[in-house]
Amino acid sequence: MDPNFESKLEAYAELTLKVGLNLQSGQRLLIGVPVYNTGVPLEAAPLVRLLVAKAYQMGARYVDVIWGDDEVLLARFENARPDTLMEYPSWKADVLLDYVQQGDAILTVLGNDPDLLKGQNPEWVSRVRKTVLECTDPAMEYVRRSAINWSVIAVPVKDWAAKVLPDIAPAEQVKKLWDAIFITCRLDQLNPVAAWEVHLRQLVSRCEFLNEKRYLGLRFIAPGTDITLGLPEGHVWTSAHMTNQKGVPFTANLPTEEIFTLPHKEKAEGIVRASMPLSYGGTLFEDFTLTFHEGRVVQVQAKKGEEMLRKLLEVDEGSCRLGEVALVPHPSPIAQIGLLFYNILLDENAATHLALGSAYKFSLESGRSMSDEDFAAIGGNRSMVHIDFMIGSQEMDVDGIAPKGVIEPVIRQGKWAFKVG
Amino acid sequence: MDPNFESKLEAYAELTLKVGLNLQSGQRLLIGVPVYNTGVPLEAAPLVRLLVAKAYQMGARYVDVIWGDDEVLLARFENARPDTLMEYPSWKADVLLDYVQQGDAILTVLGNDPDLLKGQNPEWVSRVRKTVLECTDPAMEYVRRSAINWSVIAVPVKDWAAKVLPDIAPAEQVKKLWDAIFITCRLDQLNPVAAWEVHLRQLVSRCEFLNEKRYLGLRFIAPGTDITLGLPEGHVWTSAHMTNQKGVPFTANLPTEEIFTLPHKEKAEGIVRASMPLSYGGTLFEDFTLTFHEGRVVQVQAKKGEEMLRKLLEVDEGSCRLGEVALVPHPSPIAQIGLLFYNILLDENAATHLALGSAYKFSLESGRSMSDEDFAAIGGNRSMVHIDFMIGSQEMDVDGIAPKGVIEPVIRQGKWAFKVG
Repeated sequence: MDPNFESKLEAYAELTLKVGLNLQSGQRLLIGVPVYNTGVPLEAAPLVRLLVAKAYQMGARYVDVIWGDDEVLLARFENARPDTLMEYPSWKADVLLDYVQQGDAILTVLGNDPDLLKGQNPEWVSRVRKTVLECTDPAMEYVRRSAINWSVIAVPVKDWAAKVLPDIAPAEQVKKLWDAIFITCRLDQLNPVAAWEVHLRQLVSRCEFLNEKRYLGLRFIAPGTDITLGLPEGHVWTSAHMTNQKGVPFTANLPTEEIFTLPHKEKAEGIVRASMPLSYGGTLFEDFTLTFHEGRVVQVQAKKGEEMLRKLLEVDEGSCRLGEVALVPHPSPIAQIGLLFYNILLDENAATHLALGSAYKFSLESGRSMSDEDFAAIGGNRSMVHIDFMIGSQEMDVDGIAPKGVIEPVIRQGKWAFKVG
Repeated sequence: MDPNFESKLEAYAELTLKVGLNLQSGQRLLIGVPVYNTGVPLEAAPLVRLLVAKAYQMGARYVDVIWGDDEVLLARFENARPDTLMEYPSWKADVLLDYVQQGDAILTVLGNDPDLLKGQNPEWVSRVRKTVLECTDPAMEYVRRSAINWSVIAVPVKDWAAKVLPDIAPAEQVKKLWDAIFITCRLDQLNPVAAWEVHLRQLVSRCEFLNEKRYLGLRFIAPGTDITLGLPEGHVWTSAHMTNQKGVPFTANLPTEEIFTLPHKEKAEGIVRASMPLSYGGTLFEDFTLTFHEGRVVQVQAKKGEEMLRKLLEVDEGSCRLGEVALVPHPSPIAQIGLLFYNILLDENAATHLALGSAYKFSLESGRSMSDEDFAAIGGNRSMVHIDFMIGSQEMDVDGIAPKGVIEPVIRQGKWAFKVG
């Protein structure tokens, strides 16, 4: 390994464990969460080995790795009998549940070919995905409540890098994607951990500012977009830097540039146009528009992936409603790199976005201890899916609707319209 | 991939599924059994992907892969707190138990650095190994009874190939080890599956011949070795080609050259010298001698690995007694390649061998349905370990002790002393 790359990789591992997970001595750590992908891509081995060694050095009681291989998943779609596609080995859900129930740390490592399942029968893809989501839902509820310290990071793999950087020589693509990820994670800075502390404090200050405002709603205006979202009473703006049930602060995504809360599940009116393509579970959705009425998607149009998008909206009662609204200034450090990553972890931090599906219970005051029914009654959306899609750009304005109907600028031409200390 | 290599790899996958597992339509298949190693080595991905595709084509209901990485295991020994070394994530035993209880097929893929744990504290290595064995013991009982169709194959990985072929250019080592494995698996023959049918029939005929003899015991004589083993009444000679509880024939090892049965656990008298080094769980044992009295090891000497060998003998009550005696003519096709593989799957099929630890219940008439107590009463050894070690060579003679004490030649100068049809 190139020593410069190696030292960056070490710094990335350290950032993941300290700023991302804030791994506690005595905790177990599960690397690989077989929900959004099948586990840790095999190509992530050099990073994973560093994570394992460092986690043990930090006092981890056990470090477990669940590896997954996209090609194995693809081979299933290409060769299995369709009537077997609902098969799911229960251990994958059990292991996850075991870790979250015992209050351990879990780390998702994303690095997947965005086009993996292109050309597969959307009905089958949707069936497999729904089975995984249903089986892992009890475990993911711990994540939605942030009962534990969890984090998500990205690792370049060959097919993904080729998609992001088609004009670069194939032998250089993975390396270049690493460089981009290192920059988004501020690993080009002298002291990345310190740089993250400053950055996370900024995000927290913006949350505090907006939390004092107690807006009734937000209006988003951009070419192709004009939508008004109601915000439920007691909504809380948070960043990905949060605190788990035991009071351990952690950062759920690396990198992260967003602050977010939940919209009222019955109060979305208008139209949104996606400002960037969306890669979800091996399928690519491009140039799509969603029309909302009383919180529900009532119309869908997409240049690419429309059939699959319709299926996603039908997964359950909540998958056609919104669970998250997130503000990201434009250009964010990630957008400045000028790449479309086809990876939600990176792309969602490039632009203001919404998410279809489940809301996070911590986005509501006292929400963590709320029953599903109480959470829903106040406007919190419940679903097995959570699909972020980008709507922000340099042309976006966001208004805050203050009590008594006063309109206040929150974002203008993509940039924050208010200052914090 | 080189097309010639690719077609060999395809043939290997096919042989594994058809002759090895004899995978049945509707079965699930677990690839990777985290007992002897941590799972399927990541470098086995090209073969695994072929196995998965072909298994689905054969009607598998689900194909699961548990990957494992030697470096992750090593990182634990090098960095974890010693007091955490008994930690074991229960899911690894649960998944195995789930597959065997449901009558599915399981495939072990071996490909590990024989020197991985060289230099690690033998006490810790032994503690970790014992924990794994204890936790997976209930599942492995199904394997010992051959309740299901299971198989073991080998896949070259870099560190292993470097150990086997130190004089070859590093870039060529893995390729050369593949070539050797392909030959041991008769993949150089025009129709490997047919070649295996002929070979397995030969082994079965030798078993039938010896089963009719009903020998009371065997005596092994070679330089450094003179040991007499009692054989329990009702002992059965079998090859690795056997039949599971549902009547499905399968071949538990690929390649395989041996026929074997169980010695009486209390009837071993004399001394054996290992004729080849033994690689077990990342530790290498070289040039060792074991002295037996009344079935137990009473003296141990080893040039390399003596401390660890003593620990293995102390794992449980049965680990210092014999559970298997296997006859392999010299030179076997594997020995003819002239390589020491440092891998028990290959090395045990190069020479006549014994195994410390558990006997297979199917090595006794009606043994599969016997309770542990009845099995032990007849002379069957029980242990969590099963460690084959080689004693055969071209200088070995084996005598059969027939009823009434008549001595009959079984092997002379390493070669079979009897012919079968």
